[in-house]
Amino acid sequence: MSTAAVGTPPVTLDTLNPKVLKCEYAVRGEIVTHAQNLQQELQKNPDSLPFDEILYCNIGNPQSLGQQPVTYFREVLSLCDHPALLDKSETHALYSSDAIERAWQILEKIPGRATGAYSHSQGIKGLRDEIAAGIAARDGFHASGDNIFLTDGASPAVHMMMQLLIRSEKDGILCPIPQYPLYSASIALHGGSLVPYFLDEETGWGLEVDELKKQLEEARSKGITVRALVVINPGNPTGQVLAEENQKKIVEFCKNEGLVLLADEVYQENIYVEDKQFHSFKKIARTLGYTDDDLPLVSFQSVSKGYYGECGKRGGYMEVTGFSPEVREQIYKVASVNLCSNVSGQILASLVMNPPKAGDESFESYMEERDGILSSLARRAKALEEAFNSLEGITCNKAEGAMYLFPRLHLTQKAIGAAQAAGTAPDAYYAKRLLEATGIVVVPGSGFGQVPGTWHIRCTILPQEDKIPAIISRFKEFHEKFMDEFRD
Amino acid sequence: MSTAAVGTPPVTLDTLNPKVLKCEYAVRGEIVTHAQNLQQELQKNPDSLPFDEILYCNIGNPQSLGQQPVTYFREVLSLCDHPALLDKSETHALYSSDAIERAWQILEKIPGRATGAYSHSQGIKGLRDEIAAGIAARDGFHASGDNIFLTDGASPAVHMMMQLLIRSEKDGILCPIPQYPLYSASIALHGGSLVPYFLDEETGWGLEVDELKKQLEEARSKGITVRALVVINPGNPTGQVLAEENQKKIVEFCKNEGLVLLADEVYQENIYVEDKQFHSFKKIARTLGYTDDDLPLVSFQSVSKGYYGECGKRGGYMEVTGFSPEVREQIYKVASVNLCSNVSGQILASLVMNPPKAGDESFESYMEERDGILSSLARRAKALEEAFNSLEGITCNKAEGAMYLFPRLHLTQKAIGAAQAAGTAPDAYYAKRLLEATGIVVVPGSGFGQVPGTWHIRCTILPQEDKIPAIISRFKEFHEKFMDEFRD
Repeated sequence: MSTAAVGTPPVTLDTLNPKVLKCEYAVRGEIVTHAQNLQQELQKNPDSLPFDEILYCNIGNPQSLGQQPVTYFREVLSLCDHPALLDKSETHALYSSDAIERAWQILEKIPGRATGAYSHSQGIKGLRDEIAAGIAARDGFHASGDNIFLTDGASPAVHMMMQLLIRSEKDGILCPIPQYPLYSASIALHGGSLVPYFLDEETGWGLEVDELKKQLEEARSKGITVRALVVINPGNPTGQVLAEENQKKIVEFCKNEGLVLLADEVYQENIYVEDKQFHSFKKIARTLGYTDDDLPLVSFQSVSKGYYGECGKRGGYMEVTGFSPEVREQIYKVASVNLCSNVSGQILASLVMNPPKAGDESFESYMEERDGILSSLARRAKALEEAFNSLEGITCNKAEGAMYLFPRLHLTQKAIGAAQAAGTAPDAYYAKRLLEATGIVVVPGSGFGQVPGTWHIRCTILPQEDKIPAIISRFKEFHEKFMDEFRD
Repeated sequence: MSTAAVGTPPVTLDTLNPKVLKCEYAVRGEIVTHAQNLQQELQKNPDSLPFDEILYCNIGNPQSLGQQPVTYFREVLSLCDHPALLDKSETHALYSSDAIERAWQILEKIPGRATGAYSHSQGIKGLRDEIAAGIAARDGFHASGDNIFLTDGASPAVHMMMQLLIRSEKDGILCPIPQYPLYSASIALHGGSLVPYFLDEETGWGLEVDELKKQLEEARSKGITVRALVVINPGNPTGQVLAEENQKKIVEFCKNEGLVLLADEVYQENIYVEDKQFHSFKKIARTLGYTDDDLPLVSFQSVSKGYYGECGKRGGYMEVTGFSPEVREQIYKVASVNLCSNVSGQILASLVMNPPKAGDESFESYMEERDGILSSLARRAKALEEAFNSLEGITCNKAEGAMYLFPRLHLTQKAIGAAQAAGTAPDAYYAKRLLEATGIVVVPGSGFGQVPGTWHIRCTILPQEDKIPAIISRFKEFHEKFMDEFRD
């Protein structure tokens, strides 16, 4: 006896987990699929489109646009992948001596020097200790390797925390709007409620504690138990860097309201303005005198961002403080189910938190690569921001940090009408037209959330510097035509 | 106004997601934590315990116990991690020429040769095509790179499918008992119901379709919608290799009952007996004439197992066939939320599915390493199986494949009583006593599930061959004393 209806496939959209259906992830959504199709068209028939390449400005993926990896990091990874090299004299002709020494040190931290073994579920202890030392040096406050959970990039760490905290749609997570859609996707997948708080575009995407309070109370009045506050600093997609005083108020807010503070700090190295500095939320909390007993706080970090931009390596960690031992044990258990994160990513996470020091053979070339990338990113951010602001109907806040600009499109009624006629959001319509005219891929603001009735796009600052002028002029030309076409 | 009760921490066991609390993962459970503590004790005070090292036989982690990585694979990974080497003449002194050539070929498959970029959400297309070619060569049936989803080991792939299929506790997944606890953990985390089917220990852990039918109908009579059948072949923890005829019946069963077939085939290279062969379920389905339209079928593969045992690299893939384009799109979306799996793991997955061929410079040494590992594993499996079977009160099926033995402990009433007095399951009690007497870490059968009233342990066959005699004699000595102590 079978209860399966004849002819009905075992899995249809109607019988899928509805949480999966609900989840959206615009950074790799429709516009990117469209771009990939155009790219294939271009390969088959190079003259078929009004541009000769697709420029992926939709995703913070620096090396896909030509950024070179940091040599020292790759030397160490290469040696750890093939430790037999370390015994050979010829190796000195190919690798810097401090990379060789560092590879030895890393192997000594790995039980049996086995880079091919599952590690401890939290990651290799010696590497976690090294990361903790890096955090302590950054913050001026103690950090412990026992609090580090190494993960395959930051995304699985975010999922892990959502999984832990969300019991049902009555559990809410305060998230900035605009937000990086990993958060909305993860909350949807885990069946919780996203409680939005709006960043203030007028004040450079300011994060106001009054707005947090208002939204928290509104959520509570609807019967939502708000479990955590997500803060992305530097901001994604918004690029702002929080001021220390503002961060203090946020910490106090979490403490007073009994919220877990989930601090997305993956852009901590990406600061492009002189008057702003990165302060970790843990440093802020400790400065305020809060200890491990006062405030559950998770900081996410990734090797994908910074000046290194090693997205393909999937390395990252979360520093977990302020939870009871029993809750910590549950986090450990969930980490254990996936055994461990990839060991190359673990090694790289330890390297970025403890890069070459003055006096090391690679130090000067390392600093040159690092500063070259960061100063170029700062110039690119400024050039693109100025270009956006020079255009009719576009206003754009500064990218103080991170890798994105999030310009606002002041679209005409006629343009909005054309989008509606095409059955898409106005910013999605604009992004599609931009892509088809220029090959530039950006993400519509609707993928990140925005104040209703406002329209934006997220554009990375990552194309190589020599391409920026051409991008700007292609963009300008498209935009002017678009404005002319849709002038009310 | 705060609704957080003063003094109550924001997160306690009572306010955690109960699905997390419910989830168990014995492979890294209590016994392993105990072992890690003993190991620390041993480091501090080497004479404090009756053994001088901890032998981790709890987990299929070959390189942690001294298995060496396959040289050719590591050469290629090392080169891809530092592509600048490929332009240098000195590189030829350190790497085999076919590894250099292969690294070039791989880089050509990666857009921009950027091993540090996020890849396509399913993994790098060229590598997926190579894996598909490997599958086609293995099975004699077409495979497509479009159906491959590269993942960080097999575990995230299993989670992805559970996430897709499980809507509530009314959705069930048929799982073997004993099973690899990733399945029970993932089903618990996603809030579904595990529908057990029992493997028959008497017939060498036989998988009977009658048993599947019985359990399916029982679940349905309780209102459970059974969505999928998990089959682990070769078996974990049970080590059996399914016969082709048996597999055909399983495929027909899934087809008739409208179930997704989730085929855990991560031990496909690990076969130790001459009269058994690995057949993928896809090959079986195609042999029966079923096409992509007939049967949703997912095959999981991992670089952690096989003769390569590259657990730390977290590479793996699932081959997804028989789903509608709309459902496929949902799988793609979920994969996209995590961006991509680590690129080194992706490269390694392509290497294990397309290793050196006759005529390549590395072919002979590669085959020597491969066959050396596999034949040694076969000898170790046999030696341990014979040792277990030589002992009073232990019976043990052959390990035809995989990396484990799952001997049954016929414990006395007195031993069972002692365990009850200690508040643990009898097999957990045995495992703890074994650890404390010998340093050997095994996983109690209760972590995998077993017929009620029967007791087992899972023990890997992975300690290096020269250590096996000592392990056997330590085990024997412990076991005899244990039997004497608890003779009824």
